[in-house]
Amino acid sequence: METVRMKRALVTGATGFIGSRLVGHLLEDGWRVGALGRAQSLEAMPRGVGRIHYRGDTEGVVEALQGFRPDAVFHLASQFVVEHRPEQVEELIASNVLLGTQLLEGMKASGCTVLVNAGTAWQHLREREPWDGAGYRPVNLYAATKQAFEDIAAYYVETAGLRAVMLQLYDTYGPGDRRRKLVRVLLEAAATGTKLKMSAGEHLLDMVHVDDVCRAFVQAAAVAESMTLPGMQVYAVSGGERRSLRGMVEAVEEATGQKLEVEYGAQAYRTREVMHPWEGPQLPGWRPLIRLVEGLQAMAGSGADAQIQ
Amino acid sequence: METVRMKRALVTGATGFIGSRLVGHLLEDGWRVGALGRAQSLEAMPRGVGRIHYRGDTEGVVEALQGFRPDAVFHLASQFVVEHRPEQVEELIASNVLLGTQLLEGMKASGCTVLVNAGTAWQHLREREPWDGAGYRPVNLYAATKQAFEDIAAYYVETAGLRAVMLQLYDTYGPGDRRRKLVRVLLEAAATGTKLKMSAGEHLLDMVHVDDVCRAFVQAAAVAESMTLPGMQVYAVSGGERRSLRGMVEAVEEATGQKLEVEYGAQAYRTREVMHPWEGPQLPGWRPLIRLVEGLQAMAGSGADAQIQ
Repeated sequence: METVRMKRALVTGATGFIGSRLVGHLLEDGWRVGALGRAQSLEAMPRGVGRIHYRGDTEGVVEALQGFRPDAVFHLASQFVVEHRPEQVEELIASNVLLGTQLLEGMKASGCTVLVNAGTAWQHLREREPWDGAGYRPVNLYAATKQAFEDIAAYYVETAGLRAVMLQLYDTYGPGDRRRKLVRVLLEAAATGTKLKMSAGEHLLDMVHVDDVCRAFVQAAAVAESMTLPGMQVYAVSGGERRSLRGMVEAVEEATGQKLEVEYGAQAYRTREVMHPWEGPQLPGWRPLIRLVEGLQAMAGSGADAQIQ
Repeated sequence: METVRMKRALVTGATGFIGSRLVGHLLEDGWRVGALGRAQSLEAMPRGVGRIHYRGDTEGVVEALQGFRPDAVFHLASQFVVEHRPEQVEELIASNVLLGTQLLEGMKASGCTVLVNAGTAWQHLREREPWDGAGYRPVNLYAATKQAFEDIAAYYVETAGLRAVMLQLYDTYGPGDRRRKLVRVLLEAAATGTKLKMSAGEHLLDMVHVDDVCRAFVQAAAVAESMTLPGMQVYAVSGGERRSLRGMVEAVEEATGQKLEVEYGAQAYRTREVMHPWEGPQLPGWRPLIRLVEGLQAMAGSGADAQIQ
């Protein structure tokens, strides 16, 4: 009798907003999941998820991957900083360049060739006037470190037979998001009636529900597996409904039935504000399923903890 | 009476083969020079060169550059590894990505906009069949980390007004080279009559004398200063006399008057051996002055310590 070996997914950043949700998606999709992270961060992992300790050294990562023998690596661990301070440089390089390189070493040593990586649409800054935009132009140092990692991965494509899908993510939202970002601020204002001061609000946002993002990661592994030759593909994970900040406010009003009081123009745009997000090639075989207003309704209706998978 | 302020050059890697020689060239060219490095490595610096301690943290680098106020930064510090082992990954990222990013932070904070960076022609692998070759294709992880640094520098071009010249170096040789590389091996064999085992020896080498390389660095700073807008230029520092390994052996024979005994084909080519080095755009206003045989003669005639500037 033949036993079918469950496919094994190694996930980094498994305690983050997207990563923790992705672990659930992978388990439902039939993967055995191992989470690589600092010992402390792994304490929050659910039962059934392998805990793989990251101590900072490359040999440890190599041994860990040789032990776990993943079929695919989902690399989501990242230090996210919009506008960095000098003292954050070391952590940005360590999290966004070094850790990924160590993973690639481990993949090479363990024979794992499928990588799904979380990048950012911010690797491709567009100004007010749309430009052709396929190229690299980083919004911030965070985005530059993501691009730096892609260059390093290019080396492993050739020397480790890597089949890599680099997902470029936009804004994400959904249940379980503890980050103090726009959607949470707007939903709280709708619930409490707090008046908000904002920029002129004409820049476009591309919001994607976290469950759609997780489905993109699972699909990206299938895309990478289907590649018959080593290579690297860069795909956008766009929600398909671009709205200005003002349009986002209207969506929250529609979802909650509450009128928001917003003073537009009370704040300046952020330095290097992205007015028109990059339009990259969409991940094949995937499209977002959760419409923005529905996603917001589910969050508003449940104290931001609804499950809509 | 007006005092002319001497231009200040901050040099990293000032204790290395090229860096130590570059310090002399800069002093002769009228620069005041500061060397940034670990305390221990700076002990070897000649009198008159400022010693700027690198402790590993970004704030320290920022403060150092704010104190020294360089007009140009010559970034040569690098961890060079042809075929890396996993335990070298951290040092490669720290030396070739992190340190450079810290320098860029310091340049931004101190208002220095002129960067001359040492990259490698190995960022552009060419196979046996020449291809158009402008693009990025790394020979090894070392080259990939150099490219990663270029990505990060692109962010500072826009946010710190950086004018950067990224020099892509080939093989270098000359007096003071303590590295056990080809030229030294051949000169020793000529002196001792030792028989050498080599590969088939048909791959082309592009050898550049260290004094020509140093002149390229000084010229690159002038090129960067002449840029009227922030930007990044990538230039090759090619010696202009490409010879196969067999041709190199002949050049050493000509320079020394000694016949070398070489067994070709006794060793395999290195993995990812570069058969045809990249042909990039040559640095404007610079050309190599030292012909290979003359450079070799000077080294052979003086126990490898001749000065031919």
